[in-house]
Formats: sequence, C-alpha cells, structure tokens
Amino acid sequence: MADDTDGTTSSSASRRRFLGGALGAVGVVAAGSAGFGVARASEPDASSTSKARPRVPFYAKHQAGIATPAQDRLAFAAFDVTAYDKQSVAVLMGEWAAAAAQMTKGLPIGSIETQPQNPPIDTGEALGLGASNLTVTVGFGPSLFDKRFGLASKKPAALADLPPLPGDQLRKELSGGDLCVQACADDPTVAFHVIRNFARIARGTAVMKWSQLGFGRTASTSIHQPTERNLLGFKDGTKNIKDQDVSDFDDYVWVGDETDQDWMKGGSYLVSRRIAMHIESWDTDYLADQENVIGRKKVSGAPLTGTHEFDAIDFAAKRKNGKPVIEQNAHIRLAAPQFNGGQKILRRGYSYTDGIDPDTGLLDAGLFFIAYQKNPHDQFVRIQRKLGQYDLLNEYIEHTGSALFAVPPGLSEPGDWWGKSILT
Amino acid sequence: MADDTDGTTSSSASRRRFLGGALGAVGVVAAGSAGFGVARASEPDASSTSKARPRVPFYAKHQAGIATPAQDRLAFAAFDVTAYDKQSVAVLMGEWAAAAAQMTKGLPIGSIETQPQNPPIDTGEALGLGASNLTVTVGFGPSLFDKRFGLASKKPAALADLPPLPGDQLRKELSGGDLCVQACADDPTVAFHVIRNFARIARGTAVMKWSQLGFGRTASTSIHQPTERNLLGFKDGTKNIKDQDVSDFDDYVWVGDETDQDWMKGGSYLVSRRIAMHIESWDTDYLADQENVIGRKKVSGAPLTGTHEFDAIDFAAKRKNGKPVIEQNAHIRLAAPQFNGGQKILRRGYSYTDGIDPDTGLLDAGLFFIAYQKNPHDQFVRIQRKLGQYDLLNEYIEHTGSALFAVPPGLSEPGDWWGKSILT
Repeated sequence: MADDTDGTTSSSASRRRFLGGALGAVGVVAAGSAGFGVARASEPDASSTSKARPRVPFYAKHQAGIATPAQDRLAFAAFDVTAYDKQSVAVLMGEWAAAAAQMTKGLPIGSIETQPQNPPIDTGEALGLGASNLTVTVGFGPSLFDKRFGLASKKPAALADLPPLPGDQLRKELSGGDLCVQACADDPTVAFHVIRNFARIARGTAVMKWSQLGFGRTASTSIHQPTERNLLGFKDGTKNIKDQDVSDFDDYVWVGDETDQDWMKGGSYLVSRRIAMHIESWDTDYLADQENVIGRKKVSGAPLTGTHEFDAIDFAAKRKNGKPVIEQNAHIRLAAPQFNGGQKILRRGYSYTDGIDPDTGLLDAGLFFIAYQKNPHDQFVRIQRKLGQYDLLNEYIEHTGSALFAVPPGLSEPGDWWGKSILT
Repeated sequence: MADDTDGTTSSSASRRRFLGGALGAVGVVAAGSAGFGVARASEPDASSTSKARPRVPFYAKHQAGIATPAQDRLAFAAFDVTAYDKQSVAVLMGEWAAAAAQMTKGLPIGSIETQPQNPPIDTGEALGLGASNLTVTVGFGPSLFDKRFGLASKKPAALADLPPLPGDQLRKELSGGDLCVQACADDPTVAFHVIRNFARIARGTAVMKWSQLGFGRTASTSIHQPTERNLLGFKDGTKNIKDQDVSDFDDYVWVGDETDQDWMKGGSYLVSRRIAMHIESWDTDYLADQENVIGRKKVSGAPLTGTHEFDAIDFAAKRKNGKPVIEQNAHIRLAAPQFNGGQKILRRGYSYTDGIDPDTGLLDAGLFFIAYQKNPHDQFVRIQRKLGQYDLLNEYIEHTGSALFAVPPGLSEPGDWWGKSILT
C-alpha cells in the first residue's frame, strides 16, 4: 500500500491500523498532516479500462444523491456506532469519504493486487462496471448526538426524533440508526458494493443495523425522466420537486439560515419509511376504486379531473351527484401542498421486495420511501400526520420502518469528510 | 373483456371464473374449443407506444431463459399447488402461458382500463418498460408427481429428489416446490412483474412457497458477454457452456432420447441452490489465499497457471516446492469436467442480498445458483458431492436452499402450455 511508505502516518491512522489493519481499511487512510481521508489510488481512470459510464461529481456544495436525477437502483444501510469515542467516528467518516471518492469515479477503493499477503483493499465485485452514476450520501441519526460522543450541543432542533405517527406499525429492527448511507447507481452491483465495503471498513467502529435494496426508482427528480410506477401500478412522483425547480430546493430542501446549527447549512434531512404494500389485496380491488384511492388514472397518471399526467388538479370539481371528483381522502388531495400549509418534500423512493413474509405467506414488497427536506417536523411529519390518519390508501399499506438522518452539506475537496466541523 | 363475448366459454374457464373471477385471471383465458391459454390483447405493440426494448421469442423448440444470453436481473419463485385436482393445474398452466406470451412481448397481460368495476387484468407496474429481453421459464418439481394429481407414472427418473449432499445446511422454507418460474430480464421491475402476476393468477390454485430476487448475473452464457463477478469479487462462469457451444447443449443441457419420459424431450432440469457467502470472513482473507481457494487470479480471472482469463488451465503445473500451483482442493480443479467424468452443467446464477441475517447481524448475501442439465443426478449431484466435501471454498459458503425442477420443452404456438401432454 503506497500510503504506508511515506513514514508520516498520523496517530489516528496508526491506531486504526492496530484496530483494523487486518481488514485493509487503512489502505484508504492518507497519512500526513492533512489527516485521514484521501486515497491515493494508482489505478488508471476507470473510463479508460472498462465500460465508460457516467459519473456524478463527488465534491460539491451539496451532497450528491439528493438533487441528482434519481438513478435506477438503490442500496441503503443504517449503522450503529459500537466504538466509545468521537475520534473513532471521525476516522470512520474520513475512511468512508475517501472510499466514496474512489467509488464514485468508478475506481476500486484501493489496490487489490499489490500485497498478496494482505486482504484486498476492495472487495472487487464492481470491477469493470464503471461509475454508473453512483452517488454516496451519508447522514447522522438523532442517536449519534446522545451522551456517548459529547455531541449533544451540536444536535439540530430539526433532528429531534420523529413523533409516533398515525397508523405506524414500525419494527425496531428496520428503524433508526446512528449513521446512514444511501448508495444510488444505475447498476445494482455498484450500489451494493458501497454498502458492503462501508460495512467492512466500519468493522470495530460501527455495525450495520438494517439495510434495504431498491430495485426500481419510483420518483423522478428531473423533468428529463419519465415518471416511473410504484408497485401499485400507478405513476409516482408526478408532482415531485424536479431539478429545474431551483427555488423549490432553496425553499424546501436545502437547510439555510433558519438552522440553529451552522454545520448543517447546505445540508438536508432524510426521512426513510419502509412502506409495505398489501399488493394481493390491492390487486383484487376494482380499477375505479384504485383510481379513487389515488385520485389519478392508472394508465395515464392524469388526475381524475384531467386527461394528461401533468394537468393541473381541480380539487373543487364535483360529480353530478355533488360529490367531489377527487375524493376528500384521496391520496393526492391529502398530500397536496395547498392542503399542507404549502409544504413540499423531495421524494426519492424505490420499489423493494424481500421475499415472502413468513407470517402471512404473502410477498413482502412495497415502497422504500425516501424524502429530503429542510425540516422534517414541518414537512414530512405534517403531511404524514394527515395521510396516516385519513388516506384511503391506508387500507393497502403499512409503515414498517422509519428513520431520520441529518445529511450534512457536500464535501469541498479531498481530505474533507462528513461532520469534520463537529467531530474534531 | 373480449374473451367473454364469443359465448363459447369452456367449462374450465367457467369454473375458473367462478373461483377466481374477482382476481381478473379469467381475462387471460381464451374460451372455445382450443381450450385455455391465449390472451387476445387489443393493446398495440409495446414497441410502438413505449421504449423499444428487445424481445426474446416466447414460442420456440426449447424454453427461453436457458440458452438465452443471461439477462442482467432475476426474479425467481417456487409455488406449491393447493388445489386437489389435475384440471386446476392444467388451467393454471394455460393462464400462465398466455400471460407469459403477453409479457415477453412487453405487453400487459390483459386490459387494464376496459372495465372500471373489475380489478385490472395486469397490475401495471411494468407499463412502459417494454420487453427488456424478458424470458419466463417454468418447471415442475418432484412433488408435483406425488399421489395428488395421478402423475406418478409420468415422473422422469431424472426428477428423483436430490440426495442429501455434503455440507448441506438447507432450510425447508427456502427449498423445494411443486412449480417454479424463472423470470429473467434486463429490468428488475419487468422480472418482478412476472412473479407478482403469476402469484395473483395462481390464487386459489397455488401459493408461493419462496422467492428470490437476483440483482446481478454471475455466469455469462454467451461469448459476446463479458464474464461478470460474483460477491467473492471473482469472475464467475469463465468455463461455462456458452451459446456457441451447440454440441454442448445437446450433450449436457437438452434432454434427448435417453429420457424415460417422452414429454421431457427438448426440456432440461433446473437445479437452484441458494448459496450464502460469509462475505465478512472472505473480506478478511489474504488475496493469495483467496486466489488459492478459487484457483484463479482475482482481477484478471486468469488461472494461476496462466495470464489471461481464457487461458487453458494447467492442473499438472507444480511450484518449486513440488506442490501443485492449483491446489488439490481448489474450486476450479474440483469442478473441472476432466475430474468429474467429463460432466458439465450450464450455469445461470445471480448475486443476491436479503438484508441483515437476524441471527448473526451480518449481511445475508451470496449467489443464487441456477444450473441446467439433462440429468441432475449425473451432473450437478456428481459435481456437488465432490465440491461439498472438499472445496476450499466451503469455509466461506453455505448452501441454505435447494430445489429441482423438470423444465419441459418450449411451447409451440398460442394455445400450447407447459405440461399439456401429461395434464390432459
């Protein structure tokens, strides 16, 4: 490992080598006064040696994976820190950042072949698959700010635990976490490779609490993407914030001057909800009822008051019998900004299936919902309180997992890492 | 539904309508003397209305999904029949065949919008995604030939249950099944759509026993495909039977005159094995040891006696100390045809991950191995008996699921369905 040869290894890296050297994690820790965080890979650019696939820049004002047009596939994981000191978390963030910088270029985290008597620095399964638009987005859960690491004074008010919400059927083993990583890519192996290597690098410092693969994106975040369908068979995300809505990002997504914690400026808050769909029941429901539940037509995605997907919704329209065309508790009415104090969220969900539910014998499948916003309590919680109570869709869905993470702003340059200003 | 209007509905279809009409399954049952099995969709060709994605012909001498160049994604499911009569199985096969013919063209199974007061005939999530090279491959498990349906005399000798194999750690809930469907496509939603709709159509006749999503193919089956990597980070399938090996298909894959059951001529036998990988342990193993376990170099895939992936393997080569370069129990030596009486199998595996193993807290991930062969007892069992006992890789893997299915030959034309000659 080239990093081992310059003789200026920092004390953090030395400790890390002692704790985790057998894992090869030190290979991504740059030695020297700049601290940890920079891989010095000798591999050539992936685009010259393998399929050229597009890259998303890793160093930027905001973390990639939020405003980035939603990629096709998701691998998501939550971790709990098992170490007892803040410094270990800092080292981990440096190592993860260095690894992410490599992977988002389509490069292995470090050398695979240089030292036969050591474990490879990269697990190898993504070799040759290129960057595939990979983004790696990291966040901090409310529990990271408990007594363990002395971070209580750095906890943003917006990161207060989500309150219990109507209809919640949350399972602890699918909820929460000190840290999260959202890996999105157009190739599922490229996304999984991040989760697996982050878990490997974390060994001794953090353990994976839960993970979720998403096989199909459900919410386009760009006007250049067609709206994809969720497992209800309906287009999902027609009214989502799209990349051209620049002011919406400032108004609803990016944390600004309103924050009580400067380190979060330019960041966002991620809410994930594992929403199981009772698809077998849904599939026996009549088309007209399905469309009334959602408030849109199934095939076209048009509102029931219109003919094309992007037609404005006429919530006041009445049927001949005087009842509203879009029912009072239709999903799109309850979720609409005009009935939620103008609030919006940026959705970025994915369909999932995790085999057969052993309790019911039915397919365990649904939507892994992800939303970004500047304040989850003003935005997601406000909307979900209403949806959880009244949404006609509740007959067919169940929220089984929930998590909240503060997603700090983007990293500025090699050597930067997530939470540097609060962890050092 | 157009099928309801010609007034010649068969008694089978009527019964089916009575039993399952609310599910909309009848929409795919063609009425009339030809029996069930043909959808009469009025939708235009998908390629004219949505993204044009390539199709694999559904009606052919052999079922597609075996010799077809391996697609990127897999959805697989095993079903147990809950009905008590052969006729119900026959109806189900007819309905599945009609549905598969539609989906492999990139079309919905049936009309979604025609009858608002009925459930849609197709669940809708794959609308607009095209055919995506979808193949739907159906098989019959040994248990289908027990006393229930009077099929015992039709059971091929080659379909005898797999014997216990060395090292097996099989879980019943991930093994076996009366029926199977392998859906492969270049889009995961297109593949999942098959499993979900087959389960929907089967309601009242069969229930899903287990299912498995595979996110990345590991065994190329065409010389035009690069060899992909499994989650060990090694290229997998270098020596696989490839599409240009036409004589290998006749010698090893397609059932021929040797069969005791004529209905299986042109078919094949599918063995699936859910192989969990202890990837955390593997990731701490030294590169040199990983390469000795496999017998190949990690990055290039070359045998340890060569320099390029497709170099011939020199099993006799010795090191200076007199020991073989490729160890006696290296994976590629034990699996090589020359040490297994010349036997080969056609592999078609996919990487999977199913979240965190609640027992260990580690990633539940590995290889969903699929192999096709003309006789599983002469081929897979022979090879696995040796691998299960001696393979150096056994330290890092565990077979947790197993199933065997007789895969009948391809369907000849609309109106044909799987097992027609033994179920009528």
